[in-house]
Amino acid sequence: MMDTKEKILQKSLQLFNEFGISKVSQRKIAKCLSISPGNLTYHFKKKEDIEETLYFQLTTNISADFKKIDTDEINLSFILTLMNQVFTYIHTYRFVFLDIVYLIRSNPKISDDYKRLIKNRKKRFLQIYNSLLDAEILQNEKLPNEYEYLYKRLEILFDFYLSSVEISQKGITHNHIKKHSEIFLYSIFPYLTDKGQNEFIKLINRS
Amino acid sequence: MMDTKEKILQKSLQLFNEFGISKVSQRKIAKCLSISPGNLTYHFKKKEDIEETLYFQLTTNISADFKKIDTDEINLSFILTLMNQVFTYIHTYRFVFLDIVYLIRSNPKISDDYKRLIKNRKKRFLQIYNSLLDAEILQNEKLPNEYEYLYKRLEILFDFYLSSVEISQKGITHNHIKKHSEIFLYSIFPYLTDKGQNEFIKLINRS
Repeated sequence: MMDTKEKILQKSLQLFNEFGISKVSQRKIAKCLSISPGNLTYHFKKKEDIEETLYFQLTTNISADFKKIDTDEINLSFILTLMNQVFTYIHTYRFVFLDIVYLIRSNPKISDDYKRLIKNRKKRFLQIYNSLLDAEILQNEKLPNEYEYLYKRLEILFDFYLSSVEISQKGITHNHIKKHSEIFLYSIFPYLTDKGQNEFIKLINRS
Repeated sequence: MMDTKEKILQKSLQLFNEFGISKVSQRKIAKCLSISPGNLTYHFKKKEDIEETLYFQLTTNISADFKKIDTDEINLSFILTLMNQVFTYIHTYRFVFLDIVYLIRSNPKISDDYKRLIKNRKKRFLQIYNSLLDAEILQNEKLPNEYEYLYKRLEILFDFYLSSVEISQKGITHNHIKKHSEIFLYSIFPYLTDKGQNEFIKLINRS
């Protein structure tokens, strides 16, 4: 059986995803679970504590996946699988991405961790980049800063795709995981060598 | 001399940009201007009215610029100039982009207008796309959905670049206008024909 703490986290995640953090109070979470506000604050003193716990669940999951870069063979198929997995987590914890500016502006623990996380993400990107270059899957740069800017764009697509869906469409559905992955991966296609492009086309026809 | 209404708008813009909408009350705006709260609500009944007025100032400016697509010759130089201009507006009214998910979730007038605006933006993109294709500056598609996904990425970069800067760096400075424009434009470079790429390189060396 699920304990109260776990129930609070699951319900909070659902409410945060649906309404945005600022519209969900501790009182509302308690009411939806039919528990007393006192019972809730016994487990989580402030709403920020719930936000943080959920945020760290997300980043722990994503980091575990990114660690595979150290052990597995890095090719396009690996990247496709990794991205599908990561975008599934992003979708599950989407309130973090929909409210990321607010979270980072208002919560110092999350802000500090996010700075650590983007450094790590850049390191991982360079690992992938070097592997693809060695395997002659990626072309050499044609412009100064070309791959630095590509990386910046990938970062923005990673963090803000769901926000873009939220403001331009009728709501976020499960289909958006696959689409997020495709829109993200297609941005590397024109930088691939002929060998890389052929491999890419085979992969997307299979998936 | 500036009238009170204009003063309220300018101060609100500055405070919204600096602290985010949710941290700025009508009381705070009045206090910063040394006017009474009653004087402020005489001009703007609700905070939402200030948000809306500023939002429509922004979109009116951007739309006027985009109209040049109907009259001017469309080449890479035109696009570069247009983007620098538009990203200057985005920078000036950056609270709209930093809080866009919140604004669209909470303000029906802004939400409706934004839906209209993205339709218009897609139409403008297709105009530019067709002109560049006709002028043999852009390559033909190599993958199904390739340019649809490129467009989606451009949309996300357009709307969320400043949010990304806000959460990953120490604050948004004037330099980010040029950078926004570069990161945005570099994403079209690999889709250009040889002729287009040569033109592109000449342009960025000059700018």
